[in-house]
Amino acid sequence: MQISKRAQNIQASPIRKLMPYANSAKAKGIKVYHLNIGQPDIPTPPEMIQVYHEFSDKVLAYGPSQGLEIYQEGLVQYYKSVGIPLNTKDIIVTIAGSEAVTFAMMVAANEGDEIIVPEPFYTNYNGFATMASITLKPITTYAEDGFALPEDAAFEKLLSPKTKAIMICNPGNPTGTVYSKDDLFRLADFCKKHGLYLISDEVYREFIYDGLKHTSVLEVPGFEENAIMVDSVSKRYSACGARIGCIVSRNSELMAATLKFAQARLCPPTVDQLAANACVYLPQSYFDGVISEYESRRNLVYDALMDIEGVVCKKPEGAFYIIVKLPIEDAEDFVIWLLKDFRKDGETVMAAPCEGFYATPGLGRDELRIAYILNKDDLTKAMKIFKAGLKEYMLIKK
Amino acid sequence: MQISKRAQNIQASPIRKLMPYANSAKAKGIKVYHLNIGQPDIPTPPEMIQVYHEFSDKVLAYGPSQGLEIYQEGLVQYYKSVGIPLNTKDIIVTIAGSEAVTFAMMVAANEGDEIIVPEPFYTNYNGFATMASITLKPITTYAEDGFALPEDAAFEKLLSPKTKAIMICNPGNPTGTVYSKDDLFRLADFCKKHGLYLISDEVYREFIYDGLKHTSVLEVPGFEENAIMVDSVSKRYSACGARIGCIVSRNSELMAATLKFAQARLCPPTVDQLAANACVYLPQSYFDGVISEYESRRNLVYDALMDIEGVVCKKPEGAFYIIVKLPIEDAEDFVIWLLKDFRKDGETVMAAPCEGFYATPGLGRDELRIAYILNKDDLTKAMKIFKAGLKEYMLIKK
Repeated sequence: MQISKRAQNIQASPIRKLMPYANSAKAKGIKVYHLNIGQPDIPTPPEMIQVYHEFSDKVLAYGPSQGLEIYQEGLVQYYKSVGIPLNTKDIIVTIAGSEAVTFAMMVAANEGDEIIVPEPFYTNYNGFATMASITLKPITTYAEDGFALPEDAAFEKLLSPKTKAIMICNPGNPTGTVYSKDDLFRLADFCKKHGLYLISDEVYREFIYDGLKHTSVLEVPGFEENAIMVDSVSKRYSACGARIGCIVSRNSELMAATLKFAQARLCPPTVDQLAANACVYLPQSYFDGVISEYESRRNLVYDALMDIEGVVCKKPEGAFYIIVKLPIEDAEDFVIWLLKDFRKDGETVMAAPCEGFYATPGLGRDELRIAYILNKDDLTKAMKIFKAGLKEYMLIKK
Repeated sequence: MQISKRAQNIQASPIRKLMPYANSAKAKGIKVYHLNIGQPDIPTPPEMIQVYHEFSDKVLAYGPSQGLEIYQEGLVQYYKSVGIPLNTKDIIVTIAGSEAVTFAMMVAANEGDEIIVPEPFYTNYNGFATMASITLKPITTYAEDGFALPEDAAFEKLLSPKTKAIMICNPGNPTGTVYSKDDLFRLADFCKKHGLYLISDEVYREFIYDGLKHTSVLEVPGFEENAIMVDSVSKRYSACGARIGCIVSRNSELMAATLKFAQARLCPPTVDQLAANACVYLPQSYFDGVISEYESRRNLVYDALMDIEGVVCKKPEGAFYIIVKLPIEDAEDFVIWLLKDFRKDGETVMAAPCEGFYATPGLGRDELRIAYILNKDDLTKAMKIFKAGLKEYMLIKK
């Protein structure tokens, strides 16, 4: 008996694979500050939790494959409130952003086709690409210039008859980079010129700092046929466990095909959709509070990093991640060492090694992704441990 | 812009595609008895609903990719109670049975590989096969002998170097057929001899009538490497909207690979898992009541069918479906006619045409699947309408 090649080859989560080291440290009574995973500590809105408390159907039944109508309508309201006019038929509710990405890949590309994606990218795109049997063609971006969108010429070099789409994450996980309106419109022009879909993962749309404004792929005029947007409530409302997302496009043929994929798995979870729907009607003050909290956390982490000699890092403008390039060779080895061997007052810290966020072999080995998802007291302590740990690790490795 | 070939080709749900006709009838004030979809009317256990009411975490967080530990342990208890000893490491919680089937296909077979499946089969296997880029090779079974498991020789004819697995649904959707212990052990021997996985969809395991006992693929001795079981709480606890299932195997290499697929999509919904966990501890009396209710519904529908001249149908022993072969040419046309043109006291009935449950073109055109998921009063009325409708339709078509 032999499992399939794709099952042998599919990437193990680089965010989760070092968890056994963390668990082993915890078993010894060590406190571990988790900066490795994007699980925010911001409370889920009580309005959302309340919906679970009030669910009173006698039968917990299937919903429609495209999502509960009430929630589709709620999403139309949400997007309207951020300046994006949509109809319910443009939206299919998915089982988190994960399923939305998988559907987008399968609808846009056939087995063996290629999708270009700026690297470093959200590592689970690799898993979705394996499931969809497509190849991700990475276009490298760099810590030194804040992981800026590459020029058209760099994209052009990667084009082949198999290229069916470009995929971006905006604001970026793991980079925190926000593409400007000019960036996005340029990329859209490029996609239009070459007949490509542009799949835009916008799950961090609300998390933009320094007074910047987000531009959605759905805001590009004349780009309706090409634009596919992927979204999720996980980060927006600190509701990662609800597993509710959506795929959005004004391309009606594409949405009709996506619905067939959605029908195969019947429907997203019912109560969780109702709960997500409560969030749609939260006032702007909810986001104002959350965003200013994340902005100050970013500043805290960034300032702490700037206080360490030899690190490379531009201040990111969105999401809640920072990639830092370290003056060491092997960031994964460093994280394992932090978990196994380093203690500061009985505590240590965990971040995500970046190699798994790159598709080009060898890149990102000296980089870590830090998720600033803890409260500022914990972040302050975590960054102190990080700095001390790095210093000691570098001495050992000398 | 062109969507992918697979998106063009993926099957539209034959269970759901006639819904617009039903909706249009309802808009005119017509009552439609839905015998087309497996959405039971049995109340979800209040113990399960109660868990939603009591959820009090401040943050609705991600769970582990393999499922919440408390629920994995609950499942171990459940399977122990039905005579199947397991460890938590043998179980990965999935987003309903749908995801479990998709994972099983992707782990067992590569793109272009083949899985043999007795037809008629649960139509959504087609969609999962499209997503997994594998080919389902149908082995036809027949209404006349109650869709009995074919002999080894018939399976042998379909073997090719690309064959990686046989997939069964036991008890069967849409057939209601229950494979005996002898059947299952014979099939397991066949799989072992030819180095094939046996993927067994057992979501209807509890629904067995006439005092029969279910045999799981996990009960075959010495078959640990080959056996993959797919399960779900949807039907068992009338909780289709929870979207909680699992994939079970004692093949540790296979489960390690499955976990990587599970990691890509992060985790199943958190509160729904907690809710499903409450069901694990329901007393046997819960099932006794539900099963005797379904058994009497089956008898009601079967007796009503036997009262119609020219139909072919063996009494099924499990699940909650009956396939009936009708003395007409086109069952889909008949269903559309029932919804568009036929009324009995302002009411009509809907069932699922079977053509979509067959992979061999042309088969099943004269068959319907009836789901006996309504209470007996409604079922009685629905079957009267069905009989009257068929009579009138046959007169028109003469």
